[in-house]
Amino acid sequence: MLTRTALSLALGALMSLSAWAQEAVPAPEVANFTLDNGLEVVVIPDRRAPIVTHMVWYKIGSADEPAGKSGIAHFLEHLMFKGTEKHPAGEMDSVIAEIGGYTNAFTSKDVTVYHQTVPPDYLDEMMDFEADRMRGLVLPEEVIAAERDVILEERNQRIEGSPQALLGEETAATLYQNHPYRIPTIGWMHEMEQLSREDALDFYHRFYAPNNAVLVVAGDVEPEAVRKLAEETYGKVERGPDLPPRVRPAEPRYDTARTVTLSDPRVGVPSFSTAWVTPSYRMAEPGEAEALDLLAEILGGGSRSRFYQEIVVKTGIASGVGASYDGGAYDPGSFTLYGMPQGERTLEEVQEAVSREVTRLIEDGVTAEELDAAKMRFVRGLIFARDEQSNMANIYGSRLANGGTVADISEWPDRIRAVTPEQVQAVAAKYLDPKIAVTGYLLPSENGAQ
Amino acid sequence: MLTRTALSLALGALMSLSAWAQEAVPAPEVANFTLDNGLEVVVIPDRRAPIVTHMVWYKIGSADEPAGKSGIAHFLEHLMFKGTEKHPAGEMDSVIAEIGGYTNAFTSKDVTVYHQTVPPDYLDEMMDFEADRMRGLVLPEEVIAAERDVILEERNQRIEGSPQALLGEETAATLYQNHPYRIPTIGWMHEMEQLSREDALDFYHRFYAPNNAVLVVAGDVEPEAVRKLAEETYGKVERGPDLPPRVRPAEPRYDTARTVTLSDPRVGVPSFSTAWVTPSYRMAEPGEAEALDLLAEILGGGSRSRFYQEIVVKTGIASGVGASYDGGAYDPGSFTLYGMPQGERTLEEVQEAVSREVTRLIEDGVTAEELDAAKMRFVRGLIFARDEQSNMANIYGSRLANGGTVADISEWPDRIRAVTPEQVQAVAAKYLDPKIAVTGYLLPSENGAQ
Repeated sequence: MLTRTALSLALGALMSLSAWAQEAVPAPEVANFTLDNGLEVVVIPDRRAPIVTHMVWYKIGSADEPAGKSGIAHFLEHLMFKGTEKHPAGEMDSVIAEIGGYTNAFTSKDVTVYHQTVPPDYLDEMMDFEADRMRGLVLPEEVIAAERDVILEERNQRIEGSPQALLGEETAATLYQNHPYRIPTIGWMHEMEQLSREDALDFYHRFYAPNNAVLVVAGDVEPEAVRKLAEETYGKVERGPDLPPRVRPAEPRYDTARTVTLSDPRVGVPSFSTAWVTPSYRMAEPGEAEALDLLAEILGGGSRSRFYQEIVVKTGIASGVGASYDGGAYDPGSFTLYGMPQGERTLEEVQEAVSREVTRLIEDGVTAEELDAAKMRFVRGLIFARDEQSNMANIYGSRLANGGTVADISEWPDRIRAVTPEQVQAVAAKYLDPKIAVTGYLLPSENGAQ
Repeated sequence: MLTRTALSLALGALMSLSAWAQEAVPAPEVANFTLDNGLEVVVIPDRRAPIVTHMVWYKIGSADEPAGKSGIAHFLEHLMFKGTEKHPAGEMDSVIAEIGGYTNAFTSKDVTVYHQTVPPDYLDEMMDFEADRMRGLVLPEEVIAAERDVILEERNQRIEGSPQALLGEETAATLYQNHPYRIPTIGWMHEMEQLSREDALDFYHRFYAPNNAVLVVAGDVEPEAVRKLAEETYGKVERGPDLPPRVRPAEPRYDTARTVTLSDPRVGVPSFSTAWVTPSYRMAEPGEAEALDLLAEILGGGSRSRFYQEIVVKTGIASGVGASYDGGAYDPGSFTLYGMPQGERTLEEVQEAVSREVTRLIEDGVTAEELDAAKMRFVRGLIFARDEQSNMANIYGSRLANGGTVADISEWPDRIRAVTPEQVQAVAAKYLDPKIAVTGYLLPSENGAQ
């Protein structure tokens, strides 16, 4: 149980990046329909192996938590394994273990996801389990304190013991000035300690319902057979009340550059990461999110990137340097540059070299050849990534749970190909403004703070 | 109207500082009682002039606003002048203007306050006005858009046009990682633009009631006469529903030092301010808030302070330098150090000199003589301050509206006198930790950002 739960947040954090790095051509023939009770269903046939990935994506994450209740989405994810009237705690785990399957769950800012990988014959049983706990959670008071200890221990291990993770939390709390993306998904320790059965049940009854979820089934299955099974299981779950539009507090205009510095004796090599809030795919102007993905690829997407070639290979200033764009969020995502010095070189030298490359790109743009190569690399990355069934299920689940459509996914490679050099230069100039950058510094203790 | 409203937030911001700098010995003979409907009343006799200060303090401020509705407390403060069934908009203003009185209102993080200064004969009429609008606001839809334009213009003038104010906003949003003190009282522009009549009425009906207010009357009045008048006016206002405990999201532990930098061509001399979240009087361990007040006095409370003597007079590094403690908040307050260079000296030199003084105090403490002198100066400041009737009314109103008692105020000078040198050193060591400081920089544009 601890192994599963310790992983759940990590997976949630990885998902938004991986989900957008994995689409490829041609898109599979995906079936997409909605049950009468509002449950949206996606079936992705994949016959290469006799397994099926079954996922329920709730459109609810830590950014939807009530003020002062941080961590409740993730705590509820844990409590969802505590049994219903029909299936006592542990039953699902033993059934899945017996058939050599795998089950887990994860929570992110925007979604909470439960999933199993099993032989296709057991799909109906997985559906029965998930449909049952969609509304039927019992949650006896006696499990609360023990499971709260589990999430507190999870925070101790994953956050409190890691300078990098602590810095990440406080950098997010600085980057986002108003939006709840500022609050850690696992929760602030002092709020987690107070989470109660009532908090969990309030959250559960409000947000867990077929009309607030997406079912994703990928694997060796027929869409019509899946529809029939879904109707027999999920179809019997009563629709929940309509939820109000999902509007979280938005960010104000930014006027300042901010830094967040953590100095710790456990840090060996200093490093920095500079981030900006940027639109996500869902909210971006047409073409901007795609251009941001390619900008990250060109600047720092791997060994062919400008950062790597200039700052690692040619000048040897950095031992690591990169750029990434997180465009998969429901609300504003972020664009990040990062680096660490090599040998005797200083962090300041790395930062200056990175700034120089950004300025050069903003001033001189990118060449058509460079952009074509970046598109190629990007799409090649997707082809490799989609080779795993669970990745494909993740792509569809995250996109649909975050307000997108199947068409968004199938049209995406063409949209990437349509990006022009001018668009890449334009998003760099528009978003990578040093006057409003937020930079996190992870320093060895002897550097001191400020 | 614009004059009044333009002042209202500024007063709110000043209040928490001034309120705690104004108590003196001996305390006046204050009457304190509660009406049947829950309205707490404080009467402070002051017979030096034939005037009376009449204030209604609602225990509701911008830190109590729903997520995404920043500015609604202040917007409602404006709308409270838009008339009731009994008294149409403008009537109160004309009556008060005619008798040579004065009326205004202000909103802070914790309170919303309406007040008048008038000849004592008109006290009953003021009570009638305030009691009437406590529950009787009409708020026609046609006033909303125009008054929203007024608060937007207020934001434009006071915040958008001022680098200092913009920096202040983003520094607060960085200093507080979880608590709503991070959000500006006037509101974020994009949220203010969306505030509606419904938002205002929801807030009004929820929070405006006799059992969520404190009435303060200071001046040439008899407590028993005030009680009778209050019963005849406010006493007829129906009690509102009991409000849940006033618990806002609390701050997490801090692990990082943070900076917020604004560079602007309008800035002449660079400056910095370094802040820490500290307990307020309401929440501090016994003696800590008093020790923080004296620490601010010793470090940077005026021309006799260490900062001034060392950094301005002796070394001539700074043209201005100081320290302040804001202990009047309902939830955590803050402790701030600030400075700006003189002539050709640099901001870094000022910061280093300030850090040196802080370190010296933490390491070597303060002498008994120095502390006694600081206590004397502090108490002398209070005696001058309390000489104004409205200041005294502010002291009582802010303390009682923020969960304190009349005894807290009368005992306060003795608590200041009881502070030991060890306590001052201890709070400095405990709270002024550079590893978790938040520093705002206001720089001329040529210094650039980062």
